[in-house]
Amino acid sequence: MPTQPRPLERYLRLIVITDRGLSDPRAVTDVVAQALHAGAPAVQLREKAQPPREILPLAHRLRADTRRAGALFFVNDRLDLALAVGADGVHLGPDDLPVGAARAIAPPGFLIGYSADMADAAHAAVRDGADYIGCGTVYATHTKANAGEVTGIEGLRKVVRAVDVPVVGIGGVTPARAPAVVAAGAVGCAAIGAIMAATDPGRAVAGFLRAAQRGARRR
Amino acid sequence: MPTQPRPLERYLRLIVITDRGLSDPRAVTDVVAQALHAGAPAVQLREKAQPPREILPLAHRLRADTRRAGALFFVNDRLDLALAVGADGVHLGPDDLPVGAARAIAPPGFLIGYSADMADAAHAAVRDGADYIGCGTVYATHTKANAGEVTGIEGLRKVVRAVDVPVVGIGGVTPARAPAVVAAGAVGCAAIGAIMAATDPGRAVAGFLRAAQRGARRR
Repeated sequence: MPTQPRPLERYLRLIVITDRGLSDPRAVTDVVAQALHAGAPAVQLREKAQPPREILPLAHRLRADTRRAGALFFVNDRLDLALAVGADGVHLGPDDLPVGAARAIAPPGFLIGYSADMADAAHAAVRDGADYIGCGTVYATHTKANAGEVTGIEGLRKVVRAVDVPVVGIGGVTPARAPAVVAAGAVGCAAIGAIMAATDPGRAVAGFLRAAQRGARRR
Repeated sequence: MPTQPRPLERYLRLIVITDRGLSDPRAVTDVVAQALHAGAPAVQLREKAQPPREILPLAHRLRADTRRAGALFFVNDRLDLALAVGADGVHLGPDDLPVGAARAIAPPGFLIGYSADMADAAHAAVRDGADYIGCGTVYATHTKANAGEVTGIEGLRKVVRAVDVPVVGIGGVTPARAPAVVAAGAVGCAAIGAIMAATDPGRAVAGFLRAAQRGARRR
């Protein structure tokens, strides 16, 4: 586990979430490399359709690339896979291993993120050991199937008020929408399509980071 | 992790593998309870279609029931889930986390089984830290989709010769076929349909155990 030289919320200004369908025909690793070069401080591997054995090489590669770039690396859903590749953390959702169960078997310092669109679920996750909350769907999106109801900026604001850990807005976020997300109190955004499908991923990253930076100055 | 008062191969005379589709309309826990009452020494939770959060209550229940019965409890595929419920081990296959990666993050004494139908794959898994091999499909079966080629008794014999850990025959095994499986050198069988779908699961368990017992005496 690499140490975090900066406070967690600095890394959570932007989480780049992978999607090989959206990066296509470019390799996920190429798009992530451009994002890291532009300063993306965190990457989450999210490949739900592949069995662990198939995504393991990609996970190892992203772990190496993020480490070299000084970025955090998270794995979606699978705590065992995250531990196996030396990720900094795991991102869990309502269908996954409960946060408390993951916290009980994770090593000290291992980060746990949790997806919550409601204040009570977010509060419970933090009580059980979550280090940050991914809140959304903030804006309607087609990336996540069954992403549920749209939370909206108001819903995001409620989750931010309910917890004392960093909250990241997810779901349909773009550089143009990021200022509204951080104005609601989120420390940053988690983006899938806005980066993986971007013509210029580096430029998208820069846009997200500028918005988070302005938000941080206001707080 | 409970200690194993008996040698591992004693527990591997029979692994009862769950399948809620096959136990239906009976609850998986009811069928497993009957199997444990009849002396089943090991149970493996195998519910591939359900997300972790849904199968977690079943996993906790089976862990408690097997502990009370003095039986080992394995979880299929998910090392994190296995660790979360305090299972004795995990059973991995070619699509799952590699054995070496699982061994590296599992606590001392945690058992790892691996599915292999060929001698070289079995040998590699043992080298990487597998404690036992599940070898099959020994007989054609409809339980496992994509179970691949039928290994047959000859293939089982080759795997037994290739490794110095216990081998369990899986795939279409029944009490009537168990003697041939143990005669090929397996310490026992792993059964899904022959127990979960049995009219009298306890009687099926007794049949498997008798066959393994006779095989153990011959070795």
